[in-house]
Amino acid sequence: MRTAPRAQDVADLAEVSQSAVSRTFTPGASVSEETRRKVLAAAQRLGYRPNALARSLITRRSRIVALVMSYLENQFYPLVMERLSQRLQREGYHVLMFIAEVGEAADGVLAEILEYQVDGIVMASAMLSPTLARSCAEVGVPVLQFNRVSALGGLARHASSSVTSDNYAGGQAVARLLAGRGHRRFGFLAGLEDSSTSLERERGFRDALEAEGHALHARAVGHYDFERAKQAVRAMFAQDPPDALFAANDHMAIASLDVLRQELGLRVPRDIAVVGFDDVPQAAWGAYDLTTVRQGVDPMVEATVTLLREQMHAELRPRDVVVPVELVERGTVRPAT
Amino acid sequence: MRTAPRAQDVADLAEVSQSAVSRTFTPGASVSEETRRKVLAAAQRLGYRPNALARSLITRRSRIVALVMSYLENQFYPLVMERLSQRLQREGYHVLMFIAEVGEAADGVLAEILEYQVDGIVMASAMLSPTLARSCAEVGVPVLQFNRVSALGGLARHASSSVTSDNYAGGQAVARLLAGRGHRRFGFLAGLEDSSTSLERERGFRDALEAEGHALHARAVGHYDFERAKQAVRAMFAQDPPDALFAANDHMAIASLDVLRQELGLRVPRDIAVVGFDDVPQAAWGAYDLTTVRQGVDPMVEATVTLLREQMHAELRPRDVVVPVELVERGTVRPAT
Repeated sequence: MRTAPRAQDVADLAEVSQSAVSRTFTPGASVSEETRRKVLAAAQRLGYRPNALARSLITRRSRIVALVMSYLENQFYPLVMERLSQRLQREGYHVLMFIAEVGEAADGVLAEILEYQVDGIVMASAMLSPTLARSCAEVGVPVLQFNRVSALGGLARHASSSVTSDNYAGGQAVARLLAGRGHRRFGFLAGLEDSSTSLERERGFRDALEAEGHALHARAVGHYDFERAKQAVRAMFAQDPPDALFAANDHMAIASLDVLRQELGLRVPRDIAVVGFDDVPQAAWGAYDLTTVRQGVDPMVEATVTLLREQMHAELRPRDVVVPVELVERGTVRPAT
Repeated sequence: MRTAPRAQDVADLAEVSQSAVSRTFTPGASVSEETRRKVLAAAQRLGYRPNALARSLITRRSRIVALVMSYLENQFYPLVMERLSQRLQREGYHVLMFIAEVGEAADGVLAEILEYQVDGIVMASAMLSPTLARSCAEVGVPVLQFNRVSALGGLARHASSSVTSDNYAGGQAVARLLAGRGHRRFGFLAGLEDSSTSLERERGFRDALEAEGHALHARAVGHYDFERAKQAVRAMFAQDPPDALFAANDHMAIASLDVLRQELGLRVPRDIAVVGFDDVPQAAWGAYDLTTVRQGVDPMVEATVTLLREQMHAELRPRDVVVPVELVERGTVRPAT
């Protein structure tokens, strides 16, 4: 392999100092337009590429954000990955992927993550343990929980920020919609029992039902998994079935629709109403046309980038941002009469 | 921020040489079990973490593989991203995401990618230009094209490996299936006109039709986009429609089914047969139950990792691996009588 040109070679050709070369390639550093022009021309002629890794040892910035995910079957997360990658790319950062096991704390990958000297960590659909939160705080790496909040106590709680949707308000909105359309036997299909998304959506749903004088009629657990959701729906409808079903996400709502229509021969929304949560692109596909609660991927990603920027550049106290949700009415709940 | 412990601190505490510490944390390096045990105990006590980036400057290995993607709407690519990340993680590598614009060559992100001193580049659903292929060859970074082959000539052709499915054989299999079930008016819905996937699937489809004495009856272009596929199907069926439609991927086949059933009131497979390509998870969803050609994500990912390993560790000639496909019969083509 040929020897790569060095900053000094560029400086020599451009007839500037090595520091001027370094400043030209450091985002935000001050350098005159004339100098920058000379440096870039020399760099191009020599095929010089500044070395981000070597620079990170000096600036202590790798311009890498770790994204920890464990749950890509749900179509919401590929969207998050794409939008977050694009958005960070515009800021000069890139996303390094870490896949954790579903339902396990991500501590196993922590050592690996920190080896890469990442500037920040985004945990999406992966559990943040108190140990992990503390370790990252100790080494000064900001951690952000995306769409999931762990039950962290004390110090650990204050070591990480979070971005979530207003899951509680979303659950309430679904209860009011279904009660308002005349339903009386309400079923809830839970996701992962220890996930804040499923817990908060259920809490909002139950509280609003109660406020309107109703109660939950049936409950089953689908673990946010397509096949397990189908099994749960079969069990729930085996006797004394509900007349309205709220699934804790769209992925399970779609699995439910397949069972209700194709196995049980029910007509939706005439025999049974179904509502999901997320508004993934597939919810709008013609064959499902699912009424759901939209989580705004773009505002959630925007809040994530803002929080990361705050935490990386200043010693700010971690914050919890809650993004509003929106009920999207499609064809799986009968219209108001 | 406190000063991080250094390798020398660990060596002092463990009463071994600094080289022994370094070897303990270098995958594959030789070190006695006794020494390793002492080093790990000391490292744990001090909270020492070996610095992957600093090490990469010495070994010239960052243990980062860049993944360039431009087309995540199609559910095939999130799957690829997940499986490739998991598989590389097991080898001690991680995936750094780069999102390119659809239909544009990825040269714009090349400088950024090389800044990270990546050990390899996987281009999935993004175009590799001759310039980019040459630049990477010059700096000794292996480049692998995944599920897409660019029309590269001469030297550039020999600078990159590729992993694709047998798109041509898949197209042939669809033609034989549809002709064998008695169809005579064949429609093809193309993806991106310059993508090797769409071109090869169409070539196989046309060649096998011709071999059986048939010809293409209708053709439209959906650009691998959901809405544009719907528009293309509306145009194709406005007059003299086909009685069998082969869409260049499942994403467009699903869009087609929505238009055919819900807008045109056609019964599938009785009035019209529909076949896709990829076998994304959504093709098996009950409401679509799509007959399709399966691309094996796992064998494709396995071949990718093998090729990357070969190219990183030795000066091997680039190779092109073609993974077999498999026809998956579901409910959108009528059964054999």
